[in-house]
This record gives sequence, C-alpha cells and structure tokens, in this order.
Amino acid sequence: MQTNGDDHLYQRPDAAVDRRVEDLLDRMTVQEKAGQLVGTWGGKMGEFNSLDDVKDAVTEHTLGAVATFGWGGSIGTEPGEIVDTVNEIQQLAREETRLGIPVLFNVDAVHGHAYVAGSAIFPNGLGTGATWDPDLAERAADICATEVRATGAHQNYSPTCDVGREPRWGRVFETFGESPRLVGEMAAAKVRGYQGEGIEGEENVVATAKHFPAYSGPERGEDAAPAEISEYRLWNTFLRPFESVVDEGVTSVMPSYNSTNGEPMHGSHRFLTDLLRGELGFDGHTVSDWGGVRHLHEDHRVTEDWRESVYRSREAGLTVASVGTTGHVDHLVDLVAAGDLDESTLDGKVRRVLALKFRMGLFEDPFVDRDEALQTVGHEDHREVAREAARSSMTLLKNDDLLPLDGTEDVFVAGPNADDKVSQVGGWSVDTEEHVAGDSLLDAIEHHADGAVSYEQGATVNEARDVEAAAAKAAEADVAVVALGEGWYIHEFGPQDQAGVETGEWPHRSNLRLADAQRELVQAIHETGTPTVGVLITGRPLIVDWMAEHVPAILMAYYPGSEGGHAIAETLFGDNEPSGRLPVTMPSDEGDLPQHHDYQRQPRPIGDDEHPDTYDPLYPFGHGLSYTEFEYGDLDVLSREIGPGEAVELEVTLSNVGDRLGTEIVQVYGSQRSPQLVRPSSELLAFERVSLDAGETRTVELSIPAAEMGYYRPGRGHVLERDTYELTVADETVSVAVDGTYL
Amino acid sequence: MQTNGDDHLYQRPDAAVDRRVEDLLDRMTVQEKAGQLVGTWGGKMGEFNSLDDVKDAVTEHTLGAVATFGWGGSIGTEPGEIVDTVNEIQQLAREETRLGIPVLFNVDAVHGHAYVAGSAIFPNGLGTGATWDPDLAERAADICATEVRATGAHQNYSPTCDVGREPRWGRVFETFGESPRLVGEMAAAKVRGYQGEGIEGEENVVATAKHFPAYSGPERGEDAAPAEISEYRLWNTFLRPFESVVDEGVTSVMPSYNSTNGEPMHGSHRFLTDLLRGELGFDGHTVSDWGGVRHLHEDHRVTEDWRESVYRSREAGLTVASVGTTGHVDHLVDLVAAGDLDESTLDGKVRRVLALKFRMGLFEDPFVDRDEALQTVGHEDHREVAREAARSSMTLLKNDDLLPLDGTEDVFVAGPNADDKVSQVGGWSVDTEEHVAGDSLLDAIEHHADGAVSYEQGATVNEARDVEAAAAKAAEADVAVVALGEGWYIHEFGPQDQAGVETGEWPHRSNLRLADAQRELVQAIHETGTPTVGVLITGRPLIVDWMAEHVPAILMAYYPGSEGGHAIAETLFGDNEPSGRLPVTMPSDEGDLPQHHDYQRQPRPIGDDEHPDTYDPLYPFGHGLSYTEFEYGDLDVLSREIGPGEAVELEVTLSNVGDRLGTEIVQVYGSQRSPQLVRPSSELLAFERVSLDAGETRTVELSIPAAEMGYYRPGRGHVLERDTYELTVADETVSVAVDGTYL
Repeated sequence: MQTNGDDHLYQRPDAAVDRRVEDLLDRMTVQEKAGQLVGTWGGKMGEFNSLDDVKDAVTEHTLGAVATFGWGGSIGTEPGEIVDTVNEIQQLAREETRLGIPVLFNVDAVHGHAYVAGSAIFPNGLGTGATWDPDLAERAADICATEVRATGAHQNYSPTCDVGREPRWGRVFETFGESPRLVGEMAAAKVRGYQGEGIEGEENVVATAKHFPAYSGPERGEDAAPAEISEYRLWNTFLRPFESVVDEGVTSVMPSYNSTNGEPMHGSHRFLTDLLRGELGFDGHTVSDWGGVRHLHEDHRVTEDWRESVYRSREAGLTVASVGTTGHVDHLVDLVAAGDLDESTLDGKVRRVLALKFRMGLFEDPFVDRDEALQTVGHEDHREVAREAARSSMTLLKNDDLLPLDGTEDVFVAGPNADDKVSQVGGWSVDTEEHVAGDSLLDAIEHHADGAVSYEQGATVNEARDVEAAAAKAAEADVAVVALGEGWYIHEFGPQDQAGVETGEWPHRSNLRLADAQRELVQAIHETGTPTVGVLITGRPLIVDWMAEHVPAILMAYYPGSEGGHAIAETLFGDNEPSGRLPVTMPSDEGDLPQHHDYQRQPRPIGDDEHPDTYDPLYPFGHGLSYTEFEYGDLDVLSREIGPGEAVELEVTLSNVGDRLGTEIVQVYGSQRSPQLVRPSSELLAFERVSLDAGETRTVELSIPAAEMGYYRPGRGHVLERDTYELTVADETVSVAVDGTYL
Repeated sequence: MQTNGDDHLYQRPDAAVDRRVEDLLDRMTVQEKAGQLVGTWGGKMGEFNSLDDVKDAVTEHTLGAVATFGWGGSIGTEPGEIVDTVNEIQQLAREETRLGIPVLFNVDAVHGHAYVAGSAIFPNGLGTGATWDPDLAERAADICATEVRATGAHQNYSPTCDVGREPRWGRVFETFGESPRLVGEMAAAKVRGYQGEGIEGEENVVATAKHFPAYSGPERGEDAAPAEISEYRLWNTFLRPFESVVDEGVTSVMPSYNSTNGEPMHGSHRFLTDLLRGELGFDGHTVSDWGGVRHLHEDHRVTEDWRESVYRSREAGLTVASVGTTGHVDHLVDLVAAGDLDESTLDGKVRRVLALKFRMGLFEDPFVDRDEALQTVGHEDHREVAREAARSSMTLLKNDDLLPLDGTEDVFVAGPNADDKVSQVGGWSVDTEEHVAGDSLLDAIEHHADGAVSYEQGATVNEARDVEAAAAKAAEADVAVVALGEGWYIHEFGPQDQAGVETGEWPHRSNLRLADAQRELVQAIHETGTPTVGVLITGRPLIVDWMAEHVPAILMAYYPGSEGGHAIAETLFGDNEPSGRLPVTMPSDEGDLPQHHDYQRQPRPIGDDEHPDTYDPLYPFGHGLSYTEFEYGDLDVLSREIGPGEAVELEVTLSNVGDRLGTEIVQVYGSQRSPQLVRPSSELLAFERVSLDAGETRTVELSIPAAEMGYYRPGRGHVLERDTYELTVADETVSVAVDGTYL
C-alpha cells in the first residue's frame, strides 16, 4: 500500500460506510474500479489457475474477489492450508495494491461448508426440504456461515431458490422440492441463518439467492436448457421463493445460466433490472454464475464476442462477474475508454461492492485465525445439528411391518451406497472418503446392530459386481438392507465419470429408474426370501416401481450428509422416527412428466371415464409414513368470513394413537372456488411439524394470512380475489369466504 | 314464415349484404338474435339429440346452426339420408320460423368429408404434412369443400393450425407436424382450398382455423391440459400458422379447449379479442369448440355457473357457441333482460352470422340436390387425388436394399393394420369398414403382387393373436410385410375402447413404443429370417428403436386415408416413389421430450464432453429415403447482402444420380448469427418438392423473403435484425448479410 492509510477517510472505522465508500471511490482509477467488479479462482476450472495466478490477478490486475477454496476444483481442502492462503492473499491486497482494498472470498457452501475436509455436512437440498423444518434449516445455515467465515470467506452462493419441477434435471437434488411455498420458507430460513442480524456480524456471510429466475425448469431436464414459461407461471411458481428471500433481506442474487423466454439472464436488463430490482425490490448486488457472461457469445450467441458480452451483462445490471478473470477487467476498462460504457455505470456497481467490504469489517481485519478455523470446522456441535437434520429428513415410503428392526436381527447390507460416504454427502461436497466426516451407513449399522452384520456390495451405481455372493449372504440373514440410488454428481459431472462407465445417463437423466445393475441386485436379494429394506441415497425422485410392488420397506434418505449413515441406521433400528415427508413427487413414469401436486384444473373434452389421471405418482408430494399412527379430528376454522388483511385461523386435533413417540407434518392444502384465471386444483399453503408422545392429543393451530391464498395475475399484480377458498387438512375440508383486494 | 318475404329488403338478393343484414337485424327479437349465435347437434354427444330435438331447437328456440352429420356421433352417415335431413331442416327454418332465417350446417371434415360413407378420405394431418406439398393440400381441401357443400354443410372445422410439438398428445396426428412454417403453409393451402375465391362460391365452405392459440402444447401431452408458454414462444412457434391463415383470409377461428397461461380460451378477452382481432387482425367470426363454454365453470372453474360462462365467453369475444343448445340461448336472453349483457353486444355477433348466410346464398337457396350429392361424394376423381396425396406422404425411414420389391416375391402380410380400413383412415373418419371407400393394405397387396400372398393377423393393436401361426407363414415367404401402429382414435376415445383392452395408454400415451403384442409379433416374424418390412400406420411418431436396429425396412405411412392401402402397396412394389419426409421428429425416448429440430441454443455449463445431445432423435425431422439417389451441388446465393424488403435468392444444383425417377424435398434451414434474443440453432425456412428423372440435373431456385428470417420480440413485435444469417441446404451453408428493420 503506497499511501499512509490514516490520512484517508475511507480507512477510518468510525466513519459512516457511505462516506468511506465515496472517499475511496474518488481515489480509484477506472482500472481499480473495474477490478472490484470481477473475481477469479484458484484451482481447476477448465484451465488451472495457480495461487501465483491469483496473486497476480489481485496485485497486477486489481481483481476484488477470489475463490481459492470452498468449491469443486479449488486449491484448498484442508482448513489450515485454506486459512494460510486467505491470509497471504489478503496481506497482498492490503500491502501490494495502491489502495489496499481487501479481497472478498466466496464459496459454494450450499449444504454446510462441504468442500472443506471434516466440515459438518447437512442434507442436500431435497433432504433439507424433506424435514419441512425451517428452524432447523436456519440453524444449519447459521453453522455453515460460522464455518465459512472461520476459514476466511465472506459470500456464500446459497440458498437455492429454484423450484424443483423437473426430476430429469441433474440439479434437482439442490432444490428444496416442488412447492413454491416450501422452497420459499426454506430459502428464507437459510438467508436468516447465513446473514443473522446482518452481514456486519463476525460469524455471518452474504447469502446469494440463486438461480434467478427459472433455472429449474429446463426443457428436457437438460442442464441450462431454456425455460420457456409464461409470466403467469413465472410469478406463481418460480418467483415466489425469490420474493421470500428478498423480503428476508438477501444481500446477493445470482442469475441463472439458462435463458428464459429468449432472454439469457446474464444479459437481460428486463430480468436483472426491471424485474429483480424494479418489481421485486431487490437492492443488493448481483453476481454472475461462473462463466455466465461468456456464455452470452459462446453459447446463447446473443453477442458477437466477449467484449460485447461484458458490455451487455453490465448494462443489464450485473454487479460482479464471479470468475470474470483479468480479461473481463480489460474489457471493462476498454469499454469505458472507448466511451461505450459510462464510468458512472461502474461507479454504481463499485459502491455496492465497497459497501459490502466496509460493512463486513474487511478494511479493519481481513485475516482469519488458523487455530480457530481448525477448531470451528466440523465442530462436534455442528455435526450434531447435521445429524439432527439428517434424522428429520428420513422419509419412509413403504413399510409392511418390517421396520423398525429390533436390533437383534442378523443384518445383511448391500448396494453401491452402503459403504460410500461420498454418495452420502452427494454433490457440492468433497468427493473423497478421507475428507468426509462421519461414518458410512455400513459402519453405522455395525455400530447400532446387536446381531451379526454381513456385507457384500453386489453392484456399483452402474455395474453389477458379485450379485450371487450378495444373494448368498442375504439368504443367511434375517433382514437385508440394500442401499441403492445415485452417486456423487454435479452439473455434467457424474457417476459415468467416476465409475468409468459410459451410461450417457448422468447427471441429466431421461431414464429415472434405478440402473439395471442395481435392479438386478435388489431383485436377487429379494428373491432369497429375506425381508428386504430398500434405502435410497439419491439426488432425485427415482421411479422405483418394482421395489414399491415387491420389497416390504423403502426408506428415502436423499443425500443425507456427513452424519447420514447414522441417521439412516437409527431410523432402521427405531432410534429415530422417520419424520420426513416427500418435498417432491415421485412419478410413475418418465412419460408422465411433469408431475407435481399443484397442477392446474383442466377440461376432459369428451370422456371423463377414459381420461388418464392428471396426477398419478408412485408416491405423492407430502407422503411419508411414521412408526406410530396419527389420527386427525375435526378441522375447525375460527371465522368463516375474513377480510383481506386477516388470517384464516385453523384448528385441527391431532392424536398419536400408536404406542411410540412420533412426528407428523400437518399439511394444509388450499384451492380457490372460482378464480378469474385457472388455478391449481390444490396446492400446499402451510405446514407444521408436530411431535406427539404415544397417546398424546394436541390441538394444532395454523394461521394462514389471507394474502397467502392470493395469486399473481399478469397485468394486475398480486391479487386476492373476493371468493370462497377451500382449505384441506388430511381428509377434512373447510370453506372460508374472503373479501378480496389487490395485494 | 309468417311474413311475406317479398316485402322485406333482407329477402332481396340484389340488395347489398350489409343492408340486408341491418334490415333483418332490425326485425329480430332478442330471442331470435340469441338463437343465431348458438348451434345444436343431432346425434350422440354425451346425451342423444334426435332429429325432432333438432327441429324443435330450430323452430321453437330459434337456433341458427346445426350439425346432424359430418362428425363422430352424428345421425347421418349415408349421403342420401344426410341430404334429406338437411333439406327438411332448412325447410322448417324457412317456413316455420318467424323470419325464415336458414340454418348454417357445420362439419368436422378435417381430411376429406370423412364422416360420410364412401367419401374421398385424404391422409390425416401428419400424412398431409409429410407430403410437403401445399398445392396438393389445396386440391384436397377444394375437393373436400365440394363434397361438404354437396351434402348441405357450410362451415368446416378445419384446418388445424396446431404445431405438433408433443407426440404423447392424442391429437398430434391431426397436425401438419412440428415446424411452424410447414404447418403455416399447409394450413394456408387448405384455407385456399376450402374457401376458393370466396365463400360466395357454390362449392366453397367456411374454413375454421383451430385451435387458437396453443392447444398442441398441453402439459404431459394430456388432452386439454394447460399450455404454459411464454409470449416469446407463443408468437414464434404457435401463432405463426394462425398468422398465415389470417393473411389467407380465413373466415372463422375456433379457440382451444385448454387454458394458456391461466386463461381458458373460451373466456379470454385477452386472447380472443385483444390478440386475435387486435394484434393478428382477424375479422371473421369465432366459434366455440364443442362444450368449450361449459368447461369454464365445469372444469376450468373460472366461473360459478353456466350463466356466468355464457356471459364471460360473450364478453371475451365468442361469436357462435357451436353446440350451446337451447339452454345457452336462454341464458343469453336472460343476460340481456337482466341488463348484464348489452343487446348491442349480441348485435355485433349476429351481424357476422347473418352476413355469412347472406354471402353464401342461403336465403336464396339453402337446399341441396340428393342425386348430385350421391354423385359428388367419393367421386373417382376425388379418390384419385386422395391416392396421390397418400402416395406423396409415404416416408421411407429405413431401407437396407430390401425395397422396392420386384413383384415376383411370395409375400406374407401380418399385423393389426394390414387388413383394417378403419385404421388406415384414422380418427375424424367413419369408423366402420363398410363406410370406408378403398381397399385395405392386404387387398391392395393382393392386387399388386405377382407372387403368392399369405396373411395372418398375428396381433391386434393391443393383443397377441396367433403369433406362432404368423411366424410359420412368414418362414414360408420371400418377404414379410407387417403393418403395425395404432388404431382409430380421437380425443379420449381409442383402441382400448375398440379392442376391449384396458391399456390406460390411448389416445394419450406416456409410452410411445409399439404395444407389447405388436413388438412380439414383429420380432417373431423377423426371427424366421424372412426379410421384414415394418409398415407404420399410426397417428404419431412412435419409438420403434428395436425395428430401427433389426428389420431391414421401415415405411412410415401415417393414417394415409381411404386410398392408403394402394398407396402403400404401390410403394412397396416400386410403382410409387417414397417422397414423403418426416414432418415431425421421431424421438429416441419418452424421457427426451420435447424433441424438435428447432431447439434453442443453450450453454453447457461445465462439461461439453459429457453433455447429452440436445437433439438426439431416432429419425430427425425432414428425414425420408428415396429409391433413387440424389446429389447436391454447390449452394449459391445471388447476393450476399440484401435489404429488409428483399429476398434471399438461393440456387442449388440437384442431380438424380440413381437409375429411376425420384422426388426430393429440398429443405432450407436457417439461423441468425447474433440475435438479441436466443434463437433456434437451426429451423426450417423454406422447402420445395422436386421430381427428377434418372440422370437428370436441375438447378433449384428458392426465394426466401428476408422477413421470413425475422422473429417476434416481446415488446417490439416482428423484427428482422441487421445481422448475418446462415442458410443451409443439405451439407452446404451460405451466409447472407441482411439489413434490419422492424417488420
């Protein structure tokens, strides 16, 4: 740093942030401004960027953001080395740049700080959705933020606000499911957990809502394929979670890779500025997805070259190019010099970036403590919450009196995912066994079982191994546990790469069945006559129709995280009550897609009798069995007529009539009698997790703001129409007359 | 008729139509006006309406439109009885109503007057699309109009302008395929054929473009399920054919059953008035699809009851309720009496209906001649054109040197569709053998073959019969022809009803494979070692992956119509050159849907290598083999820089280098280099059928107006951007710089 900091206003911690920002901005060259709007990476992403490359980018090219850890191809995995690197880079930024502006580090810590060895890894998106427990999701995010910050990063590319409507898509596991409301509540909870009382807090991070606005609806389920959707569906399905997190004060938003309605998001003023800032009222900074700017000319081809892509993304409203690299900076400088881009456009964006760095205290202390990081990452308290989350996500799809086991059985364990911690954590996590904390399912079963435990893998994800040996061992056991499903994958990288097998079917899948090898394995084991539990460790709703018909028990475990082995074992042995419920529909056939619970009403033109069922899943949204039995009493509503600013107050009596503690997710579905536009025949409106002791009865109260029953009408905005609304819990329905209004 | 007609202006043929309309309108009661806006039916549609019911509706309830024949459940099938009924009803309308207003008869003659016994039945939609021959489609429509008018009907609910993007949908066979341009050209040709120089012509009928605007994009492929599509896709895909027919002067438009973007079409002012009349400039009358008004309260549930549905559809812009029945009239009268609907709203609609009847000369002579009808329907000249159309549609998907047969072979014939004239015509046709003109494929093969012909059905559409007997006979023959596919179906009514088999899979199908019984049959025949030709008589692009791999020849015949048996046989024996080309993609897997050639560009976020093919069909759009061989020479463009009002003039040399006459469809695909919005990687822009003798070479000239390369941008309208455009024919591509403009 060439100047003496104490001379400048921007270096004074006591000065107001906006005054510090303006003071610093005044001192910056165009090159320095451009640099603050661009990030780079350390590690392998396409090409390899060494630590020296990163240092060079910061000192010689003024880049303001860096990712050297916390993502898939990064340099650092061990907390100690991560921290050393962070401190080294920050020191360079402080001392070897003209103005000493600290670097912002960002990470992909989407379900815990999961790209760091030994961290507490929570269930991935669908498993988190399956808990229907926003408070728990908030605690998980809070812990994640603590671990992220302890290692020196400041911005987390999470939460995912994508609504999971497309099981063929290789990223559906990252979503909280198919319900805009469930996704919205979970995403908002994670924002609260990440940002706490504000990003000024020492253990808080910048939350990044992604991928705005409709990444999860790609054609054919193909990653980054266009989403062609109406304004009506955009608002009523895809934007709802984004509205929730904007209300929650999310600091950053990341546009999606794909185009929507012909508009590539990274270059869309209509979406990034008019819609996001104008209509949704977002006032934070946007950050590109990796490579999203270059896609404009390379793939979408809406620009001629990189320079034009830089221009278009900036005019569209993009604040930071996350891995723009030095070339992006050069183009920005050139665009300003050539008069194509106004310097004031840069200034507006730089203000946002600098304010963030000031607010987070980086100008005062950008360094992290090595020992504290080592103590914080994967702390046992953190892992205990990860185990609680995994427990709460366990979703029992089928149980013909087989589960829970009493612990005395001789248990045979098989399947590709029985002894594979990498599969247990799933994508967006470290992908080597030694870096994953916790135990595999096999180890956990050995820990919990009192009887003998035998094991034979039988099949990898894609290939049969010794199926006969597995069947032989199964025949000797009292019960067989077969852990099936999918391996670790993200984007385009999946098991076909890992297993060395070319299936052409991962991570994007047109076939949602289990791989043939796995089906052969479970069939062979089942045919021995030994009662078989199918455990699904998987990123998506698989079509397990054969299992649904034949094996007595199926447990959906999603990707349960570092503590998932124990959570599954505890569930099998009855030490944990399966309280998860499907956050997504498990379809019956690929040819039935899309399948989701909140399908719109429609005519049956001629023959009602022969018309196929519109919603005909293998297991519906919200499904999940318990080890105890619940009975619902009458559903009461306190007032059958309410005003638009009021809430529907529901009361329903819930009894645990079984002989053990259990947890039910009380789900409220609603429909409007005669809306002006066609609305869903039924959709999730509200929910509550309720735990009851054996024999306990409780009156569950649910308060649903009338506004929740409204919807978005193109040209009108959010409306709540004067009409009758039907609310259903279990088999009971009540009607409520609501006085309408525009919202 | 209670008044003396000669006293009134409206009865004077020499008076101007608009003066006649106003004169008549002035004399009408609200009841009489309402009646002119409503139709009824004779036959079974839900409930049975007898001829007496129809007469009562006309005389007592003033209804102005009637359908007693020319559709599925109608009273009349034989031309003689049809004509007698028409004349009887017209006489009643003339003599037993106060003002003597003639009745308008409407029919579903979508591929010929096919619900009338003995009529000339042309290929259904996909087969017509496969000819890529608009002139032929126009001649077919002209003939159809002649037959329709000869039997006394005036309005035809055709052409289908739906773009066939969804093979699971049970009505995809009615479309002209997946290309908006091909559909648009075919639909426009049919309008020309139906309406001729104008509906005043004695052999012309009112054409009805349907189903506005996006019926063919239903979710899950389920009939009448919502189409949720962006404004961008709506214009660039679904509205294009409607724009073509509006330009062509189509007289009537029918809204779709389904909702689009939450708007049920029969009650959507935004679509039926703002879009259709305002933006597209349509100035004719709209007519409801059957039951479409009642769906508003019964299914879409956007209204509370029938009365409100009547109100909403009328305010939305609906002119005629095609089978509104007397109840609809009563509601209209009541709505006016109650002051809910202004009488002037009725007047505007009645003017359109009356003008139509005046223009068509119905006030002068609404009667038809029995003998002329008997001579006209199914005239041999008509059937010859039907055979020409069927010939031109034959699409040879695969041919490993097996076809054409030389005629001397012993031929074994099998399959559900080998001896089934009803399957040959497909839906929207008479559905009993004795009513279908022409011969079955089996009869036609017997006619054309010089060798011995044996036959064993082997399987129905859904059920195996004597497969062993079939295989035994196949083993004795030189070649086997197996006619597979689908039976006759429309909407919800299909083979599961006909065959008495519950498949749950027809006409909407989540499984696009051949039924198991058919696969078993063709496999058994193939395994005999006798070379096997698979003939597909079917309504949709089936996934015939096993056949594509194993049998040496596959001929796609679609539903070829009454003369299809001979057209197929002629093709097998080489008397007809297979000149059809696929108007729709044949996908590889249901899980790949949607699959169409003009998919939009998109990024591959991380790994290009592992990314699945976006378009990976079994047989692509435009595919079709010939018995001869064509070679393309260089592709030339007359000018590489053109203005927005100019046309790209392409020249390509085409040579028939084989040893027999053949017909090629020269296809031009285009793409824009750097559009403002994401556009297709390639899309069909133009085409031309070219027949060449053996050894003949011709320079084919194609003129493509620059405007054809433009697209619709929301908020801007039709644009042609200043850019470079690439045009591809076969393997050759040329670039053209186009000066841009708003269109």
